[in-house]
Amino acid sequence: METKTATVSVLSSEQLLKHWQGHRNLTRRTIEAFPEKELFTFSVGGMRTFAQLAMEIIDLSNPGILGLVTNVWKDMADLPHHSGVGMPTTKEELLALWDETTKVIDTLWIQMTPERFQESTIAFGQYPGPVYGTLLYFIDNEIHHRGQGYVYLRALGIEPPFFWERP
Amino acid sequence: METKTATVSVLSSEQLLKHWQGHRNLTRRTIEAFPEKELFTFSVGGMRTFAQLAMEIIDLSNPGILGLVTNVWKDMADLPHHSGVGMPTTKEELLALWDETTKVIDTLWIQMTPERFQESTIAFGQYPGPVYGTLLYFIDNEIHHRGQGYVYLRALGIEPPFFWERP
Repeated sequence: METKTATVSVLSSEQLLKHWQGHRNLTRRTIEAFPEKELFTFSVGGMRTFAQLAMEIIDLSNPGILGLVTNVWKDMADLPHHSGVGMPTTKEELLALWDETTKVIDTLWIQMTPERFQESTIAFGQYPGPVYGTLLYFIDNEIHHRGQGYVYLRALGIEPPFFWERP
Repeated sequence: METKTATVSVLSSEQLLKHWQGHRNLTRRTIEAFPEKELFTFSVGGMRTFAQLAMEIIDLSNPGILGLVTNVWKDMADLPHHSGVGMPTTKEELLALWDETTKVIDTLWIQMTPERFQESTIAFGQYPGPVYGTLLYFIDNEIHHRGQGYVYLRALGIEPPFFWERP
């Protein structure tokens, strides 16, 4: 199998999956670092709680990965972090959704052809762009909100996990 | 020019440069959003100020891009965010260093061959990994710390720039 153009060459699909799941592992440990109560109640500067930020990450990743692979997107308004319907109320529930998402990503990723990354899609029926760009947006959005979770943890006197550790 | 393996196919060198510079544009606007005084004095939870975080981002990006391109790395201990030597003391100085870095990245990027991304390097003489991984680390680290800057801004009652806007 050949790539379509000579300049499309930074990293492989497998490397990007490993990169994403490495970040997801770190975010999972960030969720775990929160005390149960503060996960659902604490924030800084009137922002959302880390449970809400984590649920946004889950919502983008799954069903997002289905949209990336198949172009079938759910409506953003129906997702738990928007609608409130299906929002977890315990850390255990949140982590279970997280782990389910990890499996869905691994399963659907197999269907991502090398050509797919350069194709166009309209994420959640609203945001047009190339598949690689949408995927990077999901990852970047996760890093962005997790970084905010690190501030919440520091404000609570809790040391966050090491940023560079992505087992 | 052909790529080395069929699976290396997610995005092109030009697309990654545009992605990085788009993030850098957003971070620049985040620096600008801080009042001069709070940029150098304010933080949450005993963390570093946003000027210090921004200087770390500059230090990784430049001279980092030189290391990515040539394998010639500076010693981390000598960089301003570590040593304190050369730390800017005004927003204007910080933004000038930012803009200089933007130009250096654009200039040196031209030397990044398609093969280079999969080669190995030892970032700052300490952190071994593939070039694409080191580069993603720089970008991720920027997103991570900028997200923290967003919390500082919110805590100061200031609305941060839109995360999705990367002109």
